[in-house]
Amino acid sequence: MKAKLFQAEKPRTWVLVFGAEDEPVAEIERFAREHGLAGAHFTGIGAFRDAVVAFFEWESKRYRDIPVREQVEVLSLTGDIAESAEGAKVHAHAVLGRADGSAVGGHLRAAHVRPTLEVVLEETLAHLVRVHDPESGLALIDPHRTAP
Amino acid sequence: MKAKLFQAEKPRTWVLVFGAEDEPVAEIERFAREHGLAGAHFTGIGAFRDAVVAFFEWESKRYRDIPVREQVEVLSLTGDIAESAEGAKVHAHAVLGRADGSAVGGHLRAAHVRPTLEVVLEETLAHLVRVHDPESGLALIDPHRTAP
Amino acid sequence: MKAKLFQAEKPRTWVLVFGAEDEPVAEIERFAREHGLAGAHFTGIGAFRDAVVAFFEWESKRYRDIPVREQVEVLSLTGDIAESAEGAKVHAHAVLGRADGSAVGGHLRAAHVRPTLEVVLEETLAHLVRVHDPESGLALIDPHRTAP
Repeated sequence: MKAKLFQAEKPRTWVLVFGAEDEPVAEIERFAREHGLAGAHFTGIGAFRDAVVAFFEWESKRYRDIPVREQVEVLSLTGDIAESAEGAKVHAHAVLGRADGSAVGGHLRAAHVRPTLEVVLEETLAHLVRVHDPESGLALIDPHRTAP
Repeated sequence: MKAKLFQAEKPRTWVLVFGAEDEPVAEIERFAREHGLAGAHFTGIGAFRDAVVAFFEWESKRYRDIPVREQVEVLSLTGDIAESAEGAKVHAHAVLGRADGSAVGGHLRAAHVRPTLEVVLEETLAHLVRVHDPESGLALIDPHRTAP
Repeated sequence: MKAKLFQAEKPRTWVLVFGAEDEPVAEIERFAREHGLAGAHFTGIGAFRDAVVAFFEWESKRYRDIPVREQVEVLSLTGDIAESAEGAKVHAHAVLGRADGSAVGGHLRAAHVRPTLEVVLEETLAHLVRVHDPESGLALIDPHRTAP
């Protein structure tokens, strides 16, 4: 993954370009930790050689994985970065397009880029913090919290 | 819905976090009216317990509703806010992901969030104004108008 | 297509509103060249009366066209503009919704708007440059290059 800072004043903005075999979820998370991002949001397009998306089942309160074992266009990638107890955490959803144009998507767990993924990432000028939500069992953004 | 202003200078930027049972279209519209937003755009991700999307039928010049009566991931929510004769008006389109990953979407009429919806909303530094378009019967943004 | 500049300082931001029969890919490219945009990203929603999307086949290293010969909602349009050897180049992916709500999408080759398409376009404060990638045969953004 190559990054280019194109706005150096706050809110800092980068373009991140991923190449073949890069795993974007973990790399964006690593990037956020290295650059001390306390909050950010991003959008992107490109293509994956495979991916795992997930669906949150309300009844079981669990994510159910949906493996996508084929080359797909990344029709949209939308996400945010917030602080959790474990550090910066990426939350991203993707819409993927198959060879026949049909769309499949979910919460993006992991993917392998091929040949490219272009992401525009913009810092937020305030901390975004996730806290445990007892009802869903998930860590949700609480806009009124400023530290994890 | 909880809001956090994370850029106080113009263009003001907020993160809006919706919780279970919130109806986002009406709440974003109310938020825009309360904060005097004369133009804005937003993106978001999350999940709905149900939604109604719509398709604009060109022949009849009517929206045809498509009820989505199941828990879905919000794979992308993209929208804008412009002034109309009735005040600030939200226009949003959504792509929703079912339990098997298949995607369905349309013009977002209404939805119930569950468990969360995270929206980044950015003000525009100029009025966006919708005016009646006689051909389609819809209120479309006219970039050259500055008052509804 | 009508444009409104709503942020005149850098990074300049516009809303572009397309009307019936406009072809957005070529028009955004022309707009970028006329305004000397060396890098930009955009999102949009609206509707098309028809479109051609494409899927990049890794094996053949070719785009395979998927014609969409019907009125569709533009559920999401996400793209960027970068300089290539031929001047500013648009790269956009679209998710389109059919009358039954089913979603189809791909790399957007061309489309005809009907009745409207609303795009928010934001300049980047640095050049984005595409260079030929020998492995894929595509022109990919290289964040470390500053001239095409």
